[in-house]
Amino acid sequence: MTRAPTTGAVVLGFDVGGTTVKAAALDIDLQPLATATRPSLRGPGILETIVEAAAELTASLSEEHRGRIACAGVVIPGVVDTARGISVRAVNLDLTNVPVAAPLEESLGVPVVLGHDVLAAGEAERRTGSANLVDPFVVVIGTGIAAVAYVEGRAVSGVSGQAGEFGHVVVRPDGPLCACGARGCLEAVASAGAITREYAERTGRTVAGAHEIVAALPDDLVAADVWAEATSALADGLLAVCALLAPGAIVLGGGLAEAGERLTGPVRERLHERAHVIAVPPVLTAALGSRAGVVGAGLLAFDRLGVVVP
Amino acid sequence: MTRAPTTGAVVLGFDVGGTTVKAAALDIDLQPLATATRPSLRGPGILETIVEAAAELTASLSEEHRGRIACAGVVIPGVVDTARGISVRAVNLDLTNVPVAAPLEESLGVPVVLGHDVLAAGEAERRTGSANLVDPFVVVIGTGIAAVAYVEGRAVSGVSGQAGEFGHVVVRPDGPLCACGARGCLEAVASAGAITREYAERTGRTVAGAHEIVAALPDDLVAADVWAEATSALADGLLAVCALLAPGAIVLGGGLAEAGERLTGPVRERLHERAHVIAVPPVLTAALGSRAGVVGAGLLAFDRLGVVVP
Repeated sequence: MTRAPTTGAVVLGFDVGGTTVKAAALDIDLQPLATATRPSLRGPGILETIVEAAAELTASLSEEHRGRIACAGVVIPGVVDTARGISVRAVNLDLTNVPVAAPLEESLGVPVVLGHDVLAAGEAERRTGSANLVDPFVVVIGTGIAAVAYVEGRAVSGVSGQAGEFGHVVVRPDGPLCACGARGCLEAVASAGAITREYAERTGRTVAGAHEIVAALPDDLVAADVWAEATSALADGLLAVCALLAPGAIVLGGGLAEAGERLTGPVRERLHERAHVIAVPPVLTAALGSRAGVVGAGLLAFDRLGVVVP
Repeated sequence: MTRAPTTGAVVLGFDVGGTTVKAAALDIDLQPLATATRPSLRGPGILETIVEAAAELTASLSEEHRGRIACAGVVIPGVVDTARGISVRAVNLDLTNVPVAAPLEESLGVPVVLGHDVLAAGEAERRTGSANLVDPFVVVIGTGIAAVAYVEGRAVSGVSGQAGEFGHVVVRPDGPLCACGARGCLEAVASAGAITREYAERTGRTVAGAHEIVAALPDDLVAADVWAEATSALADGLLAVCALLAPGAIVLGGGLAEAGERLTGPVRERLHERAHVIAVPPVLTAALGSRAGVVGAGLLAFDRLGVVVP
């Protein structure tokens, strides 16, 4: 790849999750010109996965588009040092203090900007999707759970830069052990990962992902029970958010949000059931769905180029 | 009382809580020239209590100060319409849509500004006390529990104006019933009211307030147990706050915070014990203690007068 003019620029976006790396080449309208998905590796080997996904993307682009790749955005969970392009800690990926941007710039031959997956997804939803609302609370539910709160139009990053760890709000003090070491974190009950683990444990059947459990609703009684527990826990966590922040909307995104109304319905119902003095805002699914992260990564790249996207 | 010039102005501050009305006449340095405390009434009769407290204050002022009373600030819990001076809902005081500012202006003969108790206390701490820190989370623990979060230097009021209902974060899903109708709210476990109720229930002995239970620590084993449960629950609620907002400090205020290190110690300890991936900021007691509300009410009054206090 060679440096390209920013007019008609194409960017590469990589959403590095605990289960898969989603990649896309995006045009200025944030539309995918090519996409690729690879299983995630744990540890620094994940960088090689990103390089492979980039090669797959470029191979499927037209020559014209290929020549216009100008920048890449990579978003990653956990604690991210965006200025230095380092993954400070990503528990689900087993990364600690791993430089990401610099080695990828070397391999890809374009500037690489590193960002936090949920902040990026929230911003993508906010700028292009359903979260174009007053101060939404945007939740991304995938292998893990994280969120971004907006207050007066700005994402809350916190004094330590570590705000939005919604997945580690304890909702079930006697609940299952979380990967973080605590007990009963929301992520340990309501993430796609937790749901598939719980279902497999109860039935002895391994499923490929939470979408299979959603598809089995409502007839599969174990699926229904696991789903009810997950959505209840999610609503309980959101109730704390409503009490503390009174957001203008709750936007549920990430892979699990592809369940649509089967997710928002029970969450909304339980929120209203339990919110005695707390105002409950609209509960929506993210318009970009599980694409929010990769679009957010693309937005970071266009922002770095100084290109204003719609 | 008659209108007075704002130079050397004296203001009256009233902190209307679920148990007492705390009143003070304050000079420009926010120092109390006179104080008064009266038991709270439930229902609109509370206005008469405020008028009586005002009379008590003025009676104990020097003639010079009395002539300089220029404004009064009243702060109250629950949902407050500050623009119209109305208590929209205050569960602990049994008020619904009760005009407060207008009738008090009539009785007191000075402009009256109505505010939210916790926002006012937080602002008082922030401007004069220990919370002069980057984005603190200021909790006021009295009959109930509420809080104000600061993000990038501004108090979070939420889209509905109802942010800060920290007392209604559910920390014990199977815990005691809260006055709000939900089960296991932080306020139902860790407020001064909840602690005294729980102690009375277990021992059959009625105590005048939570300070008696604190005084009985650590030898009174029931007191120790009730206190441990309350501080644990408080820490669990604060852990959710740290996860979501990553505040720069936690400031504990209100009557219960007069316990000082006996409150902050166990809260800090449990926070560190349970925060596996969450950053824990310093945990401090409010410098103004239980005076924060009344000083905050005074600040509102000086703000209304356009007088810049230190």
